[in-house]
Amino acid sequence: MLDNPLHLLLNPKSIATAGAGNNPLKMGTLQALSILKDGWQGTFYPVHPTEKTVLGHKAYATPLDLPKAPDLAMLIVPTAQVLPLFEQFAQIGTKRVVVVSAGFKETGKEGRRLEERLNEIAAANGMRFLGPNCVGFVNTAQSLNATIAPMEARPGLLGLASQSGTYITQTLAYLRERGIRFSKAVSCGNEANIDMVDVLEYLGQDEQTRAIILYIEGIRDGRRFIETAQRITPVKPVLAQYVGGSAAGARAGLSHTGAMAGPDELYEGIFRQAGIIRCQSIEDLYSHGWVHATQPALKGTRLGIVTNSGGPGTAIAHNADQGGLTVPAFSETLRKGIAELIPGHASSANPVDVTFNMDMDLLSTGLPERILRSGEVDALVVHGAMGTGFMREVYPHVREVVGNPSLEEFLAPFKTDLSEKAALPERYGIPLVISSFFGREDNYTDVYRDHGIPVFDSPEKAARGIASLLRHKEIRERKAIVRPELPEENPSASRIIAEAIAAGQKALNEHQAKKILAAYGIPVTKEVLVATEDEAVKIARRIGFPVAAKACSWEIMHKSGKGLIALNIPSEVPLRDAFRSIRRAAGQTVPILVQAMIPGGREFVAGMTRLAGFGPCILFGLGGAFTEAFRDTTLRSAPLSETEAEEMLFDIRAKALLGKFRGLPAADTQALTRILQGLGVIALRHQEIAEIDLNPVIVAGSRPVVADALFILKGRN
Amino acid sequence: MLDNPLHLLLNPKSIATAGAGNNPLKMGTLQALSILKDGWQGTFYPVHPTEKTVLGHKAYATPLDLPKAPDLAMLIVPTAQVLPLFEQFAQIGTKRVVVVSAGFKETGKEGRRLEERLNEIAAANGMRFLGPNCVGFVNTAQSLNATIAPMEARPGLLGLASQSGTYITQTLAYLRERGIRFSKAVSCGNEANIDMVDVLEYLGQDEQTRAIILYIEGIRDGRRFIETAQRITPVKPVLAQYVGGSAAGARAGLSHTGAMAGPDELYEGIFRQAGIIRCQSIEDLYSHGWVHATQPALKGTRLGIVTNSGGPGTAIAHNADQGGLTVPAFSETLRKGIAELIPGHASSANPVDVTFNMDMDLLSTGLPERILRSGEVDALVVHGAMGTGFMREVYPHVREVVGNPSLEEFLAPFKTDLSEKAALPERYGIPLVISSFFGREDNYTDVYRDHGIPVFDSPEKAARGIASLLRHKEIRERKAIVRPELPEENPSASRIIAEAIAAGQKALNEHQAKKILAAYGIPVTKEVLVATEDEAVKIARRIGFPVAAKACSWEIMHKSGKGLIALNIPSEVPLRDAFRSIRRAAGQTVPILVQAMIPGGREFVAGMTRLAGFGPCILFGLGGAFTEAFRDTTLRSAPLSETEAEEMLFDIRAKALLGKFRGLPAADTQALTRILQGLGVIALRHQEIAEIDLNPVIVAGSRPVVADALFILKGRN
Repeated sequence: MLDNPLHLLLNPKSIATAGAGNNPLKMGTLQALSILKDGWQGTFYPVHPTEKTVLGHKAYATPLDLPKAPDLAMLIVPTAQVLPLFEQFAQIGTKRVVVVSAGFKETGKEGRRLEERLNEIAAANGMRFLGPNCVGFVNTAQSLNATIAPMEARPGLLGLASQSGTYITQTLAYLRERGIRFSKAVSCGNEANIDMVDVLEYLGQDEQTRAIILYIEGIRDGRRFIETAQRITPVKPVLAQYVGGSAAGARAGLSHTGAMAGPDELYEGIFRQAGIIRCQSIEDLYSHGWVHATQPALKGTRLGIVTNSGGPGTAIAHNADQGGLTVPAFSETLRKGIAELIPGHASSANPVDVTFNMDMDLLSTGLPERILRSGEVDALVVHGAMGTGFMREVYPHVREVVGNPSLEEFLAPFKTDLSEKAALPERYGIPLVISSFFGREDNYTDVYRDHGIPVFDSPEKAARGIASLLRHKEIRERKAIVRPELPEENPSASRIIAEAIAAGQKALNEHQAKKILAAYGIPVTKEVLVATEDEAVKIARRIGFPVAAKACSWEIMHKSGKGLIALNIPSEVPLRDAFRSIRRAAGQTVPILVQAMIPGGREFVAGMTRLAGFGPCILFGLGGAFTEAFRDTTLRSAPLSETEAEEMLFDIRAKALLGKFRGLPAADTQALTRILQGLGVIALRHQEIAEIDLNPVIVAGSRPVVADALFILKGRN
Repeated sequence: MLDNPLHLLLNPKSIATAGAGNNPLKMGTLQALSILKDGWQGTFYPVHPTEKTVLGHKAYATPLDLPKAPDLAMLIVPTAQVLPLFEQFAQIGTKRVVVVSAGFKETGKEGRRLEERLNEIAAANGMRFLGPNCVGFVNTAQSLNATIAPMEARPGLLGLASQSGTYITQTLAYLRERGIRFSKAVSCGNEANIDMVDVLEYLGQDEQTRAIILYIEGIRDGRRFIETAQRITPVKPVLAQYVGGSAAGARAGLSHTGAMAGPDELYEGIFRQAGIIRCQSIEDLYSHGWVHATQPALKGTRLGIVTNSGGPGTAIAHNADQGGLTVPAFSETLRKGIAELIPGHASSANPVDVTFNMDMDLLSTGLPERILRSGEVDALVVHGAMGTGFMREVYPHVREVVGNPSLEEFLAPFKTDLSEKAALPERYGIPLVISSFFGREDNYTDVYRDHGIPVFDSPEKAARGIASLLRHKEIRERKAIVRPELPEENPSASRIIAEAIAAGQKALNEHQAKKILAAYGIPVTKEVLVATEDEAVKIARRIGFPVAAKACSWEIMHKSGKGLIALNIPSEVPLRDAFRSIRRAAGQTVPILVQAMIPGGREFVAGMTRLAGFGPCILFGLGGAFTEAFRDTTLRSAPLSETEAEEMLFDIRAKALLGKFRGLPAADTQALTRILQGLGVIALRHQEIAEIDLNPVIVAGSRPVVADALFILKGRN
């Protein structure tokens, strides 16, 4: 932890600012005010070219004038002033800098050069910096707020790393209303030096942080990201929102794999690989993160529901079911226990529906305790506990009738100490979340929010919040990821590739491709390349009818639907016909591949494409004729451990095809796993290969066999 | 409209209550207070057994004592008192009643009988009633609030019919915070007499109501619901949330169709049939409904985005894209116009990102006007306009620096009249929604919400709100639904069914089933039932090899994977082998069906099952081996118009298979449409049939042919 650059950056004993003055509506000044006013106990040095004091503190004209080197410098100045100030801080020995200023890489070449220069100075002086183009950070353990707006006073449990500054500035009131509190929050900006992976690693080690949320627009060093996250996620939940995949599908590729590996598919896949729970909105990111940060780990799937109205109870059950939770009927004993507490017409089943009922102790404590104590649930959602929220609503109507009290007088009897109600999850070690249509104006939602019980503003969200815990249960229970050593390069594979390149090929032909696969232990069809009809017949007899015949040339990358393939050829005569007809369709004396037919019915696709920052990425999915129609695929970054490859298999919608299927035995998933791992090895050992399609990989009986293969060579299209 | 029972019920000139007294925390009293205090101008008659006055109004001991019959009576009394009171109101001539009291059908047999009794009295006296077990209604056009909590004063545009009372009571503060206002809202309760379809019909005709939202747990009269909605939805948007489908998949069926027609699939299908937009949460139901109610209709798919931060802009673009909208790059001219208004480093492309910027006129008016005027967008989302919300945040930090003003003094300069900003959508006829992390405490979100501009609390939701408008554009542009006359019953089909029933069959055998299909013009495979090997060979020669051979017996309902089918038999010898081997597998001298093989590759399933309230329901989907693995199906209630049947085809994920596909021509969708319509006819004309599976329906070339068929007979399993 100490060698993480964030350690000193988030825990400085002294901070200098450049850009803070006495105009309270300038960003720099707001940032200095946050540092000064939110409780941090360190030494503050404003650097200002003209002012004698800044916000009541003695100001220094330049960093060189400072009495000692501050642990941290913050630069909130026009772009042009960043470099000279940065150099001066380097000169006096400051080791951490936050560059808030914009105008760098995001503006083009000139800005990128400026960033590089900052990095050179940092490297030469043992410095690390955050930004540029970021909004700062908060570290609630130190009461240190280095953003523009006031921070919630009480320290929280949720760590945030964000590639958008908005999510630690514009959302402060939003988060306060919901009771969500950060442990640390870091705006990553352009990530010229310290990047999101550094922050992730730091938060992973930080004891105050019980769950981590990431707002991601793009990851540069994909492998480091995955491997860092894999160390954290079995212990600490990591949730991420990725947006930026709008261009998905727009990407054209020579291979199916390339065409189906858009940015959204990539991030979906690597999040799974890393054990990261994906969220589809900033609301889910914050609120699910808060559930993970505050609630005990989920031990099973059984959800209890207590509600004061049928509609929300049904909605919670429906959404819990969709999220993989169960809503079990309670035992006779528990139902009896519940029935003793509730009105006659209320339901003691699960959901327990007390119907409209102003006995809030029952709804918020009596029933929840009875249920939590029973051992029959692994989590609980309570809908409808409300006090002053509802009374505020009816006040205008009943005021006169009850003798014209003021609103405060009217609400006074409801303002009792409810903090005990928030102790339930801890007491029973069982997660609890609340669904309520009331906000902070209600004393119940207020006390829940202030005591770390997540309150959702509608029943569906509460159910989905609890279901998110189930995702981390699955991640905790994941098989260990043991990264095998990378096998040696196979010389005969290298020779085939070298020859193809020497011959000016832009791709390998099917037969070459299969020889490489075979060299790495991937099972392929029995096949022989032939030049004449008679030879075809001889080979077919040796392989055994029925056979397939295919045109075999690297120039024909996609053969289907063009008369270049004949399948299920039963005997000699039709083979001779097929031979001639394929040559005719090809319009040239193309070599013909005579191939064993694989009985099957279950066809998959496996492939490889290289994606910037993520190296070779491996694809698995439904293959054959339906590849494009369904786009039922999943992606991971290679090299692949056995666990990662195996998880891919069960990550497709059509995973039922892998089991026993219409009289066929279950597919040999270990063999499929080895194919996916093997593709990674080939890609890593042979950088000349740009993309690979194995389609179809036919499961014959239980054994997968590659029936067709396409290797595209790099830089040749 | 006048003949709709809701007309008088929602617009009474006089109301009597039974159950309202002077205890302000009783439901009846709260309801009377709402009637009296929210602006309604009619005459109020409390009926109370003991009180002389109720809430300052002269009370009457029984309905019989009333000076005249009220237009509407509301019963909020213990269950036992409902019937006598109802009878007395009938006696004096009251024609509309709201029965709020619970304790009826929902409690069992006795309660159900009580409900029937109410219906008998109503029928005998020309009365209609809402409930029992409901929470009342609001009609803002009459300032009439007959629920327990105070109503938002200003009339709204959104009509609600709800099967949960919660959604017009517990959510009032929630809705007020968001500026969402009802035109009419009706709690349907047990629907003993007036049901949700009556309310839907009324709201469809109501001029005040510009969009309708429905909260549904179950529809009893499905056909009436669909046909009523189909009259409304081409003109007025109807949105619905359905929950209650948790048991989906638990349902076992003898046919695939039965197994795949769970409640969730049913409602998904009939909403599409009805032109209803489905929402997955109460939040979406309210907020999307509000977008439809307040914003001009969407004319195209082009979305403009203005933001003060990159993250939310990207999130809006991503979600818009997923919802079918486009975020087009602006023209050079428009970009120049925008660039004149914004800081140098800001982006003039779409999204327009002004970065952190306190010039709110620019963000809220200048840029939006420039973009709306350009004609380059069909809708606009603005993220980040904020005034007092943000200033409130920074106030604690800057207070001292700016001379210790009070919060009010500090905020005063920001409190200008912003109502002009809300006039944009109307001025340009283009929808606008706002994304903001601030609530009512911000003067911008406040004014937007009060002027009918939907404000979402996060960018993803704003994008999805606008995308919901696109759904109604599609519904407006739907082909007309012309319901064809139901063809006559086919006598030979009737004969086959009658014979099968007489023979004690619980299902038809494949050959019988196909004869019925053929009788209704549905194309089936050429096939002949044979009893001997020689006959099989003779028939196969006539049909032409390759052929299929299948065991044909009603007792064998599912043949695959059991050795009872041989496909692609190329010639006589293997046919004889197959014949013997099928008989062996069947363990009996079963008749063999010799059948033409259909070349294809594209296999679909079509089916029928009967679902309570919805009559025969027709299923279409991906068929063949993948039926169960993908469950890619869609459902509609029959009879089917051509439009409805055709829409089904394109409602499956695998719809790409219907187009040109790997060298095959596009499928004849008209012929497929006729198959689906035909299934409806067969089901309606032959009530003895319980379920039908046609699987696979093979598209041979472009022509669909039924290759296998299963008919289950009613009441026989």
